[in-house]
This record gives sequence, structure tokens and C-alpha cells, in this order.
Amino acid sequence: MGNEDAGRRLSAWLDRFAAAAAKGDRLKLLSLFGTDSYWRDLLAFTWNLHTAEGKQEIGEMIQATLERVQPNAFALHEGASDTEGVAEGFFSFETVEARCIGHIRLKGNLCWTLLTSMEELKGFEEKKGRRRVMGAQHGAHRDRQTWLERRQQEDEALGRDLQPYCLIVGAGQGGLALGARLKRLGVPTVLVETHERPGDSWRKRYKSLCLHDPVWYDHMPYLPFPDDWPVYSPKDKMADWLEAYAKVMELNVWTSTTCQKASFEPKRGEWTVEVMREGKPVTLMPKHLILATGMSGIPNEPNFPGMERFGGEQCHSSRYKSSEVYRGKKCVVIGSNNSAHDICADLWENGADVTMVQRTSTHVATSEALFRFGISRLYSEDALDRGITTDKADLLNASVPYRLMPEILKPVTAAIRGADAHLLERLEKVGFLLDFGDDESGLFLKYMRRGSGYYIDVGASALIADGDIKLRSGVGIREITSDGVIMSSGEKLPADLIVYATGYGSMNGWAAKLISQDVADTVGKVWGLGSGTTKDPGPWEGEPRNMWKPTRQEALWFHGGNLHQSRHYSQYLSLQLKARLEGIPTPVFGVPQVHHLQ
Amino acid sequence: MGNEDAGRRLSAWLDRFAAAAAKGDRLKLLSLFGTDSYWRDLLAFTWNLHTAEGKQEIGEMIQATLERVQPNAFALHEGASDTEGVAEGFFSFETVEARCIGHIRLKGNLCWTLLTSMEELKGFEEKKGRRRVMGAQHGAHRDRQTWLERRQQEDEALGRDLQPYCLIVGAGQGGLALGARLKRLGVPTVLVETHERPGDSWRKRYKSLCLHDPVWYDHMPYLPFPDDWPVYSPKDKMADWLEAYAKVMELNVWTSTTCQKASFEPKRGEWTVEVMREGKPVTLMPKHLILATGMSGIPNEPNFPGMERFGGEQCHSSRYKSSEVYRGKKCVVIGSNNSAHDICADLWENGADVTMVQRTSTHVATSEALFRFGISRLYSEDALDRGITTDKADLLNASVPYRLMPEILKPVTAAIRGADAHLLERLEKVGFLLDFGDDESGLFLKYMRRGSGYYIDVGASALIADGDIKLRSGVGIREITSDGVIMSSGEKLPADLIVYATGYGSMNGWAAKLISQDVADTVGKVWGLGSGTTKDPGPWEGEPRNMWKPTRQEALWFHGGNLHQSRHYSQYLSLQLKARLEGIPTPVFGVPQVHHLQ
Repeated sequence: MGNEDAGRRLSAWLDRFAAAAAKGDRLKLLSLFGTDSYWRDLLAFTWNLHTAEGKQEIGEMIQATLERVQPNAFALHEGASDTEGVAEGFFSFETVEARCIGHIRLKGNLCWTLLTSMEELKGFEEKKGRRRVMGAQHGAHRDRQTWLERRQQEDEALGRDLQPYCLIVGAGQGGLALGARLKRLGVPTVLVETHERPGDSWRKRYKSLCLHDPVWYDHMPYLPFPDDWPVYSPKDKMADWLEAYAKVMELNVWTSTTCQKASFEPKRGEWTVEVMREGKPVTLMPKHLILATGMSGIPNEPNFPGMERFGGEQCHSSRYKSSEVYRGKKCVVIGSNNSAHDICADLWENGADVTMVQRTSTHVATSEALFRFGISRLYSEDALDRGITTDKADLLNASVPYRLMPEILKPVTAAIRGADAHLLERLEKVGFLLDFGDDESGLFLKYMRRGSGYYIDVGASALIADGDIKLRSGVGIREITSDGVIMSSGEKLPADLIVYATGYGSMNGWAAKLISQDVADTVGKVWGLGSGTTKDPGPWEGEPRNMWKPTRQEALWFHGGNLHQSRHYSQYLSLQLKARLEGIPTPVFGVPQVHHLQ
Repeated sequence: MGNEDAGRRLSAWLDRFAAAAAKGDRLKLLSLFGTDSYWRDLLAFTWNLHTAEGKQEIGEMIQATLERVQPNAFALHEGASDTEGVAEGFFSFETVEARCIGHIRLKGNLCWTLLTSMEELKGFEEKKGRRRVMGAQHGAHRDRQTWLERRQQEDEALGRDLQPYCLIVGAGQGGLALGARLKRLGVPTVLVETHERPGDSWRKRYKSLCLHDPVWYDHMPYLPFPDDWPVYSPKDKMADWLEAYAKVMELNVWTSTTCQKASFEPKRGEWTVEVMREGKPVTLMPKHLILATGMSGIPNEPNFPGMERFGGEQCHSSRYKSSEVYRGKKCVVIGSNNSAHDICADLWENGADVTMVQRTSTHVATSEALFRFGISRLYSEDALDRGITTDKADLLNASVPYRLMPEILKPVTAAIRGADAHLLERLEKVGFLLDFGDDESGLFLKYMRRGSGYYIDVGASALIADGDIKLRSGVGIREITSDGVIMSSGEKLPADLIVYATGYGSMNGWAAKLISQDVADTVGKVWGLGSGTTKDPGPWEGEPRNMWKPTRQEALWFHGGNLHQSRHYSQYLSLQLKARLEGIPTPVFGVPQVHHLQ
């Protein structure tokens, strides 16, 4: 009964919304929102990824967009539900230019949260299902060009006779997901990848590397993993999948190619990008440049006094590789987040004598508990049994405004903490410094706010608790000597290898490196919500800064994140690029001010 | 109402069937079948692919199997339907050793057709969905063996320290589909493939080659094509897909490897197989040998008088490759089936002067009409919209006993003929000899009976009708001269190139070649139903001879067919092999006598 009633309430609300929208009655429209309300729009109204919070901001958004967008053809989907008085459900609608999906939560008869998501541009639909191409041309054609010849011709022409509309720097999961979507939309694109093969960004790292997120969360667009794919993919299997993906999706991936210099010429509306392809310089002139170089940006190279004197091996964590040569060697890992833990465990597995230096506290949650209390609600066999497909899960995930997340995630974090209590106690006993986020909101928000400060435990925590990985915590680094590390406590750790797991800078560091410091500063900090918590200074932005949406630098875009984000947000980035290719007006509402340069 | 009533009728029948089976009451069971009735069993009762026709044969099958099999846990699925008084629907059931699906059609309250299909062995389920493996081992493990190392170790050990249980000869779509299923079931398997890369059996042929069946019919097991896959795959795209498939399914494909000699030692229950792997001899000792060398067998090499005198180029159609060197050259293609048509069109596209010599009549149907009136009922976007997934379509397809097919297919053939009427008329005007099967039952049965005698038109027919491809029909070949072909009519066709599209022998020709003529004769003819029509001599077999099921030669199996058959019947072949690996008793009911040697 509750669910039937939810359907009626949502239908009634949608009818009122549709009627007010049809009349252009902004006040009426605004009156359908509660005082505490949120409207997250993914392109449909704003050509931006934008969350309007409260009636004031929602009113401004309606004012700026309603007349142009002309939303219509609202239709509630089946499956509306009621949870403690909050009715929620999906609906379809159209705008003047696109087909869209919405999701709404009502408190009483007023909107609490609204998500509006652009799904496809009218007239520029993907050629799938009934729209798929015929393929082999039936009939007889003198001097027929085959699929292979067309592919080869395109490959030879690209960058010479034919300029790509988009250049994606990086062919990891982010670049490949976006590349696949652009390919389907017919947007000529080249991906450049430093490594020899797609997937090498996984393949070439330390041998115990694996996905810390479970398989249901990790599908690439269009080609889900087979149903026997392991829950946690080992790195080489993931790498082979990405390589096969690039091939069957027919992506133009230039491997062994580095992007050296890029500059934008506003008059021509075009980038000039110098790349070195298999040792030969090529100049590309794309209209759009997408940095998909990893959400983590450029490694924070350490700068400790005395490093130049160190007689052993030392490297940033990003350059650490597994090796049996560390057997019996003294290894010090400076840092205590994901990479530091993974590398400590990898060194231990290789028979090294390893010490972790933890300078500040870390949030630790086991992969199992995170899955059980967090991800599995939307991404699991259980969720699939409840009819929550990957697409639905992505929209439900997107339907929660960032502002509401801390309150929603605190009890989840508490539950995870409870499940992990024994391990956490054992960690504290050996002096490991724990935290659960500035506001106890846990891992996902640490990830969204700062992209660091946590470890998803897949085994290293037990090694620390057992003393197999030695720990020094709450200390800084005073200096590096010829044969070890002197900590702020004065203690000296002898070392044959030092790994600096000192994290990564903001992604606009890539812009500084490839384009210019000016452009990096124009764009400002990438990632983070403006939450005013550690490493995520305010003011509040309400969306991840500069990700998957227009930046203050024309024609420069940032793409990345985990596999889920690469999959879902590549949809919006690809639609933005396609609209620009086709000359569809894309007036952007709500581009934020730049408050931080890095 | 009709469908609800159908559900009730089917439920009641199943209840009676279950009750009689539980009591072991064979007579009661038999009384549930009509006089005109068919029970097609795919392993569930017979450990064979076997159709019992009429109450006598059904009674014998029940007598031989019921006590051992103990069918139980019958449950009708939703979606039962009624068409002109015939109620039909799917149901689940179990046997002592397996989980199964059935499909039934009732006339009145008696069974007209019954299909029973084994889906999985209890205790040996595929590790998919909730059963999937965890993948990366969490926890820390000294000297951890990674996924890659395990793969590499297996690869090195196979054929040296570790013998495969199965050896599959041929890594085309058939071998790969079976390989993927065996991999999932944990059956150690090696595939040997003559070519350098999986997919080369497509890649290396003439450039206009494409699938003549539409995409919905052609999915490989476990990894369906993405939803934008072209309706008709060009050969190179298909080849790339197969290559990626072999990789992501982790199949042990030995490329550039030819199988040279195989012999079975009954005492050890083991094959000794000499293969040449990249130029080096390796001896393999598998328990089972599966020939997946193409359903068409070995090329029928032509033997026309005077061939040795011919001064131009001549080859069997299987060795024809596209080339622009034929521009302006006189080319004669002897034959008028699929390959002959494809090659004539390809030559014409390459600018050759081409003549087809049609010796006997051919069934021609356009790809479009075949799809519209035939395949699309089960394999299409429409079918998907009606809830007919690929798995369901395969079972529905399998649910029609071969005996009933002619009557069912005659009206379909007539409809296709009607739709193609204009083209067929034009073909007849230029003298092309048409037929529609001995009994007007059309293309699918020609394929099942003899694997030849037809052309799925994708364009060559119009070239023939227009005179672009010249035609000589109703003539034989008298002799080949130094510079042409003399036909039985006395006419001489000058030729620079002669292509002999003279078809293929029975697949047991491969057994003769790789094993011995004795073994080939023990097995007898492969393919064909025993319909007593042209090239398919009786007696009636009711199932394709020797395909996907036990043969008269212990541990020798034949696998192949089109993509649909490779997909669906690899399920049954893999279950038969898995059962033997695990020592599950597999008493086979109804192995046919051998009546024909080729």
C-alpha cells in the first residue's frame, strides 16, 4: 500500500511540475520544492553538473534555464517506493534538445531531492539496438571499402589529413570509457597513452595490486564483465580486459605516445598539441583537450633534507615495482594511505624487513565491511535481484546531493567501524593512528573531498597489527642520511630502500605541466567539494571541482575517478562534447569561481 | 484467458508427470503423451542428444532411463501461452545429477512435444554470479602467486608437466565457444589452431566476407556482443572479437600449431596426439579429442580431366583470396552455392570478368527475407522486447523436433519466396536454376540435411540477374584445357583463373586425415538427419549425425556449426566432458547405428 500511495504522490507532483513548466510559471514550479530541498542537474537544464541547494538557488536555476529548456513529456516509471514517509521514484522527461531521466524524493507533497540527468541528444542517438548499423554492406560494390580498410584509412589519416575533434590524454579506464562513448556518438577522437599497451598503467605496477572495489561497481560502459568475473580483479586481468576493450570498441589509441606541450588558440578555438608518437613528433589540432591522466594528478615529489645523500634506492610510490631483490633488505615506507599499505604488504610478501612511517592519522575500513554496509546496497548480486541494474544504481548513487551525504554516511561509517572493531582495536594497540573523517563521515567522503587519507584494507592492517610490518606513528621526518631516515623523534631507521608514499597533487598540475601555469591557475584546484575539512578548503561547491564539466579554460576538460565514476560521468562529458561538435547551443549555468590554485 | 488456461493445463500435466515419475510408473507416464508425440532430450535423461518419436520410442526411452534419472522438483515457469489450442511453456526440474529446463507443448491434455535440457551438474556449477571467485587474494601471502604468474605457470606446464583433459582441434567460433564453457567448468583444455591468431579463419579469407546471419543469432557464450554491434559483422571485426574473446576468457589457445597425428589407446583411455607448435613437435595425451575444424569438413578437391594442363591459376574456393590482380582477367567459378556466389561477387568487385558455372539447381533466399520470416521470430530486437532472451530463443529453437520441421518450414519458405519473387523471377530469366529443397522446406533444412545447396543472398543474385556475373547453367564440366574450361555443352570458357567451389566432405574426413580411415569409418558420416533427400540418405536419425554427442569412437567428438549452434550445443558437449572428468556415470541411450561412411 505504501508503494502504491508513493506512486500516486509522485504522479501528482510530476503533473503539477509539468503543468507549471508548460506554462513557464516559475513561482508555481518553485512552490513544489520544500524549504530543505536540492536539485542536482546533470546537463538537462544547466549544461553543467550543478546542485542547487534550497529554494533561493533552485529559483535562480529555474529563472535562468526554464524558458530555454522547455521540459515536457514527464512520465513516472514503475517501481515507486516509500521509505519512512519519503516517496521516491524515477521518471522520464524531455527537453527541447534531449531525452532525460529524473529521480525524485518527496517529503509530504514537496520535493526534497530532485535529480535530472541528460541521457541522449535528440537526433544524435547512439546507433544501438534497433538503430544499429547494418555492418557489412550487402549488395555488390565495385572497389568496396571494407571495415578493415576503413579502419586502417582512418588510422592513417588521423593527425595527418584529419584532425580529431577530441584529444584524450591517457588511456586508462577513464580515457577508454570516455573514448568508447565518444566513438558511439561519432566524435572523432584520439587517445594518447605513454605506455606500450592499453592497461599498462595497471600491468606495470607492483604485483599484488588489485581493485579494492568489487566487480559490480567496476563495469566499463557498454561491455559489462562476464558474470564469472572475480569480485576483486587482479591487476593483470584488469589490464587485459582494458586492452581488449580498446580493441573491440575500435578506439584510436596511440600507444607509446607522450603529450609534450599543448596550447590553446582562442581565435581558432583550437589546441595545438605536440605529441611524440613512437619517437616521432606529431602535431595535433583538436578542438577539445581532455586530461584523463588519473584523478590523483602529478606525484607529490618529496623534498626531505638530505635526500640527495641517500646511498640506497628511493622512489615515489607511483614508481615502486615489486621485486624479490628486497628480500632481507631494510625498507622504509613514508606514508600511511592506500599505496603505502599496499606497498608495505608487497614488500613483506617479497621477504623484506619493512617499516611504515605514519605521520598523521588514517581512516581504515576493511573491503568486506565497506562492501557489506556501503556499496552492496546498489552494487551487488542482491541489488541486481532487486532490479537495480548498473545504470539504475549509477542514477540512484547520483541522486543524493553531496550536502546530505555526511548525515547519511555517518551511521554507515559507524556500522563499518563496528564490524571492523576487533581489527581497529588491534591497530590502536600497536600505535596506529585512526580517524573516521573530520566529521566521522567515513571513506567515500574522504575520497570525494581530498582523494586521500584512507586505506581500504585488503590485508595489510593485520600485518601491521601483528608487527610483521613495523610501525612508527605520530612522527615526522627530520632528514634522510646516507643509509637511513631520521625521524622527528630522533630515532634513526636504517634503510636500503625508501618509498615516499607522499600522495599526489591536484590534477591541474597536469595542466601546468602540459599547457602552462597560467592555464592551471585559470582552472584552479581540481577535485574536492569545498567542504571546509582537511585538505578540502571551502567555500562549498556542491559538486567535485572541475570534474567532467566545463572549466574556466575553454575547451579543457578533466576526466577520471574510480571505475564507477569513469563509467557514469563519461556519459555527461561525452554528451557535452557531442553537443559542441554538432553546434547545439550549450549555455552553461553556474560555473563556480576559482578559489584555490591547487 | 487463453494464456491463464494454458498455465493451468501445463501445471496439471506437469503434476501428473511428476507424480508418475516419483512412483516410477512408466505406463502412467507414457499415457501422458499423445499418439503423435516427440520427446527431445538433451542429456537430461539419455546422456545423449536424442529425439524419441511416438509412444513406442518414448516408452523405450522411459524404460531405459527413468529409474536412474529420478526426475523431480518440477516447476512451471511464468509466461505459458496458448496458440490455436496448443499450450506451451517452460519448466524447471532436477534429476539425480543435474538441474534442467524443459519445454512442453500440449494438444488437449496430452503432450505433443517435450524438450528436456540439462543446464548444470549439481556440485559442479559454474562459478558465476554469487558463486564467482573472489579474485585477488586479500590478506598477505608470502611469495604470493599472482593471477598472471598462475596463468603463465599453467601455460608452461600444459603439455609438459600437465596434460590437458581435452584437446580441441580448431580455435574458430566453435572451438572457442566450447573452450570457454570448459574453462568455466574447470576442465583443463588446450586448443590448437593452425593460424597465427584466433580469428584468422575469418581474417584471412576474401575481403567481402561477412556473417550472413544477423547479430542476435550470433552471440558467443557468456560475452554477448555490445548493443551497437552491426547486424551483419564484417569478417575482420568478427575476427578481432574472437581474438579478444580467447584472451579475456583465458583460453589456452596454441596458435601456429597443427595437429599432425592422433591415435587412441583404449587401455589407457587416452589419446596420443602429435602437434607441431611453432615449428616444434609436442606430444599431447588428452583423454578426449574434439574436432572443431569447421562443420564443412575437408574441401572436396575437384578432379576434372585436364586440370594438370591448366596454365592459369586454379584453386578450391576455401583457398580463394581477394585480389586486385584479377582486374580485367577472365575468371570461371564452378559451383553455385554460398561460396561460389560470394567469390563471384568478390571477383566482380575486383574488376574481373567472371562467369559462374551452375551445374545443378540452388536454393536462393535473400538475407532480408530469411530474417523477416525466419530468424527474427526468435532472434531480433522484437523478440528481445517480447522477453525472448538468447538463452530462451536457443531452447525454443531446440524444442521443435526435426521430424516436424518440414511441415513448419514449408509455409515460411513460401513466404520468403513470395517476398523474394521479383528477384527470383529475374534469376530465372537469365537461366538460373532454382529449387526450394526437395520438399519445398527451404534453407534451414538444406543446411541441416546436407550443409549445402543454397545461397543466402547478400547481393550476388542481382549481379547474376543483371548479367554482371555471367552465368552458364545446367551444364557439367567436360575438361579443363591449358587456357579454359570446356563444358558438357561443348562451349569453351577462356579462363585466367578457375575457382572450384565444389564444396566440402563430411567432417569424418578430418578423422581419416588426423587419426585413421578405420576410425573415420567407425564414426561414419557426420552431419545430416537421414532425411532421405538429396545428399542426406536415410534411414532417419532424428538428430544431426555425430554432432556434439558421443560417437562410435570412444573419446572422439565433433563440434561446429553456425554461431548459434556453436553457442548452444557447446553447452551440452561441455557438460558431457565435465561429467566424464568428474567420474559421473554417463550411460548413453540411443547411439545410432552407422549407415554411411561419408
